[in-house]
Amino acid sequence: MNHDEILNGLKEGNIKLYQVEKYASSVDEAIKIRRKFIEEFSDSSLDIIAKYDLDLEKASKRNIENPIGTIQIPLGVAGPLKINGDYCNREVYVPLATSEGALVASINRGCSTITLAGGVNTTIISDKMTRAPIIKANSAKDALKVKNYLEENFTKLKKIAEETTNHGKLLKINPILIIGNYIYPRFVYSTGDSMGMNMVTIATEKILEDLEKSLDVTHIALSGNVCVDKKPAAINMIEGRGKTISADIIIPEEIVKEKLKTTASAIQEVNISKNLIGSASAGSLSYNAHYANMIAAIFLATGQDLAHTVEGSLGITTAEDRNGDLYFSVNLPDLPIATVGGGTSIETANEGLNILNVAGSSKVQEFAEIIAGVVLAGELSLISALAAGHLARAHKELGRG
Amino acid sequence: MNHDEILNGLKEGNIKLYQVEKYASSVDEAIKIRRKFIEEFSDSSLDIIAKYDLDLEKASKRNIENPIGTIQIPLGVAGPLKINGDYCNREVYVPLATSEGALVASINRGCSTITLAGGVNTTIISDKMTRAPIIKANSAKDALKVKNYLEENFTKLKKIAEETTNHGKLLKINPILIIGNYIYPRFVYSTGDSMGMNMVTIATEKILEDLEKSLDVTHIALSGNVCVDKKPAAINMIEGRGKTISADIIIPEEIVKEKLKTTASAIQEVNISKNLIGSASAGSLSYNAHYANMIAAIFLATGQDLAHTVEGSLGITTAEDRNGDLYFSVNLPDLPIATVGGGTSIETANEGLNILNVAGSSKVQEFAEIIAGVVLAGELSLISALAAGHLARAHKELGRG
Amino acid sequence: MNHDEILNGLKEGNIKLYQVEKYASSVDEAIKIRRKFIEEFSDSSLDIIAKYDLDLEKASKRNIENPIGTIQIPLGVAGPLKINGDYCNREVYVPLATSEGALVASINRGCSTITLAGGVNTTIISDKMTRAPIIKANSAKDALKVKNYLEENFTKLKKIAEETTNHGKLLKINPILIIGNYIYPRFVYSTGDSMGMNMVTIATEKILEDLEKSLDVTHIALSGNVCVDKKPAAINMIEGRGKTISADIIIPEEIVKEKLKTTASAIQEVNISKNLIGSASAGSLSYNAHYANMIAAIFLATGQDLAHTVEGSLGITTAEDRNGDLYFSVNLPDLPIATVGGGTSIETANEGLNILNVAGSSKVQEFAEIIAGVVLAGELSLISALAAGHLARAHKELGRG
Amino acid sequence: MNHDEILNGLKEGNIKLYQVEKYASSVDEAIKIRRKFIEEFSDSSLDIIAKYDLDLEKASKRNIENPIGTIQIPLGVAGPLKINGDYCNREVYVPLATSEGALVASINRGCSTITLAGGVNTTIISDKMTRAPIIKANSAKDALKVKNYLEENFTKLKKIAEETTNHGKLLKINPILIIGNYIYPRFVYSTGDSMGMNMVTIATEKILEDLEKSLDVTHIALSGNVCVDKKPAAINMIEGRGKTISADIIIPEEIVKEKLKTTASAIQEVNISKNLIGSASAGSLSYNAHYANMIAAIFLATGQDLAHTVEGSLGITTAEDRNGDLYFSVNLPDLPIATVGGGTSIETANEGLNILNVAGSSKVQEFAEIIAGVVLAGELSLISALAAGHLARAHKELGRG
Repeated sequence: MNHDEILNGLKEGNIKLYQVEKYASSVDEAIKIRRKFIEEFSDSSLDIIAKYDLDLEKASKRNIENPIGTIQIPLGVAGPLKINGDYCNREVYVPLATSEGALVASINRGCSTITLAGGVNTTIISDKMTRAPIIKANSAKDALKVKNYLEENFTKLKKIAEETTNHGKLLKINPILIIGNYIYPRFVYSTGDSMGMNMVTIATEKILEDLEKSLDVTHIALSGNVCVDKKPAAINMIEGRGKTISADIIIPEEIVKEKLKTTASAIQEVNISKNLIGSASAGSLSYNAHYANMIAAIFLATGQDLAHTVEGSLGITTAEDRNGDLYFSVNLPDLPIATVGGGTSIETANEGLNILNVAGSSKVQEFAEIIAGVVLAGELSLISALAAGHLARAHKELGRG
Repeated sequence: MNHDEILNGLKEGNIKLYQVEKYASSVDEAIKIRRKFIEEFSDSSLDIIAKYDLDLEKASKRNIENPIGTIQIPLGVAGPLKINGDYCNREVYVPLATSEGALVASINRGCSTITLAGGVNTTIISDKMTRAPIIKANSAKDALKVKNYLEENFTKLKKIAEETTNHGKLLKINPILIIGNYIYPRFVYSTGDSMGMNMVTIATEKILEDLEKSLDVTHIALSGNVCVDKKPAAINMIEGRGKTISADIIIPEEIVKEKLKTTASAIQEVNISKNLIGSASAGSLSYNAHYANMIAAIFLATGQDLAHTVEGSLGITTAEDRNGDLYFSVNLPDLPIATVGGGTSIETANEGLNILNVAGSSKVQEFAEIIAGVVLAGELSLISALAAGHLARAHKELGRG
Repeated sequence: MNHDEILNGLKEGNIKLYQVEKYASSVDEAIKIRRKFIEEFSDSSLDIIAKYDLDLEKASKRNIENPIGTIQIPLGVAGPLKINGDYCNREVYVPLATSEGALVASINRGCSTITLAGGVNTTIISDKMTRAPIIKANSAKDALKVKNYLEENFTKLKKIAEETTNHGKLLKINPILIIGNYIYPRFVYSTGDSMGMNMVTIATEKILEDLEKSLDVTHIALSGNVCVDKKPAAINMIEGRGKTISADIIIPEEIVKEKLKTTASAIQEVNISKNLIGSASAGSLSYNAHYANMIAAIFLATGQDLAHTVEGSLGITTAEDRNGDLYFSVNLPDLPIATVGGGTSIETANEGLNILNVAGSSKVQEFAEIIAGVVLAGELSLISALAAGHLARAHKELGRG
Repeated sequence: MNHDEILNGLKEGNIKLYQVEKYASSVDEAIKIRRKFIEEFSDSSLDIIAKYDLDLEKASKRNIENPIGTIQIPLGVAGPLKINGDYCNREVYVPLATSEGALVASINRGCSTITLAGGVNTTIISDKMTRAPIIKANSAKDALKVKNYLEENFTKLKKIAEETTNHGKLLKINPILIIGNYIYPRFVYSTGDSMGMNMVTIATEKILEDLEKSLDVTHIALSGNVCVDKKPAAINMIEGRGKTISADIIIPEEIVKEKLKTTASAIQEVNISKNLIGSASAGSLSYNAHYANMIAAIFLATGQDLAHTVEGSLGITTAEDRNGDLYFSVNLPDLPIATVGGGTSIETANEGLNILNVAGSSKVQEFAEIIAGVVLAGELSLISALAAGHLARAHKELGRG
């Protein structure tokens, strides 16, 4: 079919959005036709969406369905940021994609303070990815049998799981929750450099097949919200998911004064009254000021799954006045990231990773350490701005609506 | 200074990243120099980041600092989706920016089911934006005096707040939490079509100025995490923040069977055991399967603040087997969105809003209803896929890593 | 029937436990027979349970069914405790019923410190009782109509509610949560000196009758767990339930040193790292060390509902080093108590209230202030003992198993 | 000193409350004098408190300080309740101490339904007691070293811990949370028939002594609120504490109809809308109707620590309509109980345990199963009463205030 025939098919409802590729001569033509259809339907022009520079033919195989172009997001950089980690031990410039004015500037101020103080120390505490299906037995007694089976046959199940993957390892099945006749076993894997959600889903599915053969059970769902993927949850804060990582720093009194225009004592009080008591009073699961801003901006710049901002932004900030010097830490229990797979191969994301020199294999720990450092930079900057009383003024000066 | 001189200044550390604009002949040149610097520093090429089509000069005034180009994200569309709302009563095609393969396809399946069943019904329950500073008194008794003052002088404070804004209205100050000598008053505003965070920050700052004049108190921070901005929190689920909106639908038994390949009863059980019991067991604040996916994709396509995915993805899904038919609902207590201001004026985002015909003033309710409909589409699709047992298989067929 | 005939009837299953009163000559005889039956069934002797001094005939009408005697709990006293409240402004000795060794001693140490420092200041922030039923509509749109009806007809509903009670007042209906087609309106009452749960249940039931007449809805349950009764919940911490009350004190440096064997700075650090960060890390809703111990002991000594320990023990402790002096506060958002009704008329409980001079009408605020003071005494004592590093040693010396 | 001299000493403040035993001829005389002092101070008579039948001399060594007598609580019984457990497989009558009218009657109705349906099935999932101190290092990196040390030296630390106790075993140290420079290792023990809090405190203290010798750390507090003792917390629901136990039952349709006057379908809907959706909406950690009532009543009747009602009442109820029959379960993740030690040796409590035949060693599993059965009885009764719409009416008929 030619362009107009396909377009008419779309308009008349004979061709579905996802069928355009079938009739068009190329993916690019399909994109053009689909976009044209949307433009006519919505009586609007999509000129800039049309000017994409990604290889959408490639993306349409792995990252997107029904493509019509791309969304562009401004990309800024902050730095230099000195990282003293076990994997990353150098200065970096950080790519940050955002449309929230003042954010890059604020992070940049944090970076500059950190680097002046000798750098941020980063500590990876654990690294894993999880999947927790729901298995249904007839009763709680039968559910306990499933739990026992999982524990007693760990070696066998590990073998089954690992046959499905080159990089994944089943580390443990823990906890295994029983609620009535439902069992929620949390399968915990290491997944190498990929974020691993798909890997653990496939491996867990194989285990479930074995289970349904061996025991009189069915599985209700491959994910039972005990994983917990893309939702805020205490279990992820307690058990960890993705990378669990801390970053901390001691900032000498004079730098606090010169660069942050405040004192360690004032920062400590803002942290206690806002991040700890305020969050507690509000029934929050996040005890920080704005990890989400840094996480979203760096995730967007590097091809991470944006929905994982929900998990990645969990965490607790601490601040301590140590005789005038400031001890400051951010703690991210649940940072699901990747340097290969998913959106990381999309061209601009890949360039974003390259800015940090963390694209590809064996780089994900370095990347985690950088993210933790950036989160500390942004958190420190905002908390000290609040302590110095000038948050609103800064925003006003930038003339934001 | 010319290009090379500025570049050298950056390399030698004499010029900071944010000072480039000062020396360059134009914003575009500044972007080019800064990007060149980053390329050399990281020994990488940023060719696609360089090919931006946004007006970054404009963006650099409101949305980004230290720009070097743009990140591009594939944009797909799903639809048609029939919305039966009080503000939006029509079919739409939904722009979704993501790099997570299968997401648009899955949402599309939901849209198609919904539209076949006559459309999704949407109900806006409330609409507000909040800011809750921390005020410090000497004691709890003095803190109670502050609470009483706020309640007794509401009219005066409302006047003060509303002098700072054309569109904002102070609706109430509630709750006013007292913890020891700290007071956390939650100022609740209506903010028209803008998301309103900046508006309420400025208005609240003015109120605090009055307070510090009238009473013997200081404010510790303009935000005390009782707002709660960009963090998951029970208070936002209980009191609402941004738009509080429900979407629901009854899907006849035959459509459940034909389109979703499952039954209302199976969907109900997945919802109970996963979204309710599973989330409860995990200590989660979110009782849904994956609102975050839909929220992130549509936020990205329409210029919303991505960090607000944390709030926007909170909510509870319900599913009920009504004699074979399926009653299904999604409930979003905390959806902070805008059709003007912030990132909405960036060109591709604006085009994204135009696809929905919701760019500009007096459109934000329509936009909220569409988002709720899209969330229902994606949630229904995933829950029914789990019920039909084919989540992992679908992913495998798409060959994702 | 005579004693043996009834006993045989119980053994043969012809007479149920609750039917004994029907055949026995008196309640006391019924108690004796029932106890005899239990002794024989369990092959044990209940000699001390038998030696009750309460009027169980009276109690059997209001407080207990199938009585067989009483449980005795050791009662200790702590004090004097100086309270500087708006209602209670005097020294008290506090009755504490417990079997946990060291608890009374520890609270006593706190009382002594407080009184030496001039007394604890107490501040009642609010006072209410709530009931939140579940109403079922057909859809979210219909649910919103119910919400609107409740708001528009508040005056009428208030009248209906208040016709059922002499002391209760309907203060507001807020929040009104909508989840799919379910509506959870939280009816908020003042209830005078009684705890009020029964009062608000009856009043709310009347409102529901009106609602079911006026609208096409049914109520699913008189309580929908949004009240929230006898369960830990953020909504009670945010909105308050029962009495919301703070107690605070400034303890001069020398008293901290002499009496508590530690420093304000050490106490502040224990409070931050344990009550704030520790609780946050554990996904807890309670940010204190052991309010539950004090609440259970005083509730037991004064006839309160022990199941309300769950609510009464919620709360946040703060501690601040003020140049060597210690500012310390406890904050109880959800303290449901009574000085009339329920278990308060049982003889020993009534004597317990009399020790505090708070039995009967118009005393409940005084009582609330005393409880807050006692909670501060116990919390201060434990936190300072931890700070001084001798918790375990203290326990070992008491030789407890 | 004689009676009057000691009394005068108390009045004049020369003798403290806790010093009376030192001057009096016996504990009983000390009790009498102290009570007399309180009577005069409060101008009230404590006649019934005086009529105690416990051996307070013995109690004053382990359970109470500054005793003045006892509090008496009415004790009722419910049953027979048929338990089908792995440890308890028989009918029991359950002692319940309460002053909340209708509670025993309601539980009794549940027992009668259960027993008619063949008994409640109970399943113990795990059994442990925990203590989580706070250790302070200089930085997060040093904190990780402490974590590594704990993991690498588990065998040594286990030996150290177990030297302090005859019955306790250190099972694992997990999780070990790191927040900034603080470490919260959760030491998990088995503790035999005692509740074990004191045992694990002493054992953990010994481990800390080793740690402070081996590493450059100090411990801030023996308990860091990650244990979590006497506070509601997700970690206890996820990891378990005390006994983790489920109880379930299938009740045939005709028994649901005859005894409970409702249907499985109605009970399922109340459970979903109240215990699951309602609790979720309220930001609650407890997804049940009123476990706290049963827990408090049986704890009080058997000498358990009443403050543990907070933990023991956590849990999730499920209900499923299985073709007209009702599957119903209660799930208690965190039930800290004992049959020896603590308050269990107090005379009436011991008799309470004897009613169940669970006093003394090797009985605690039986006891746990009975408690789970009682919780199910009470929960089933209330949920079905709500489903049948007669909660308020039942209360009114009992004439409670």
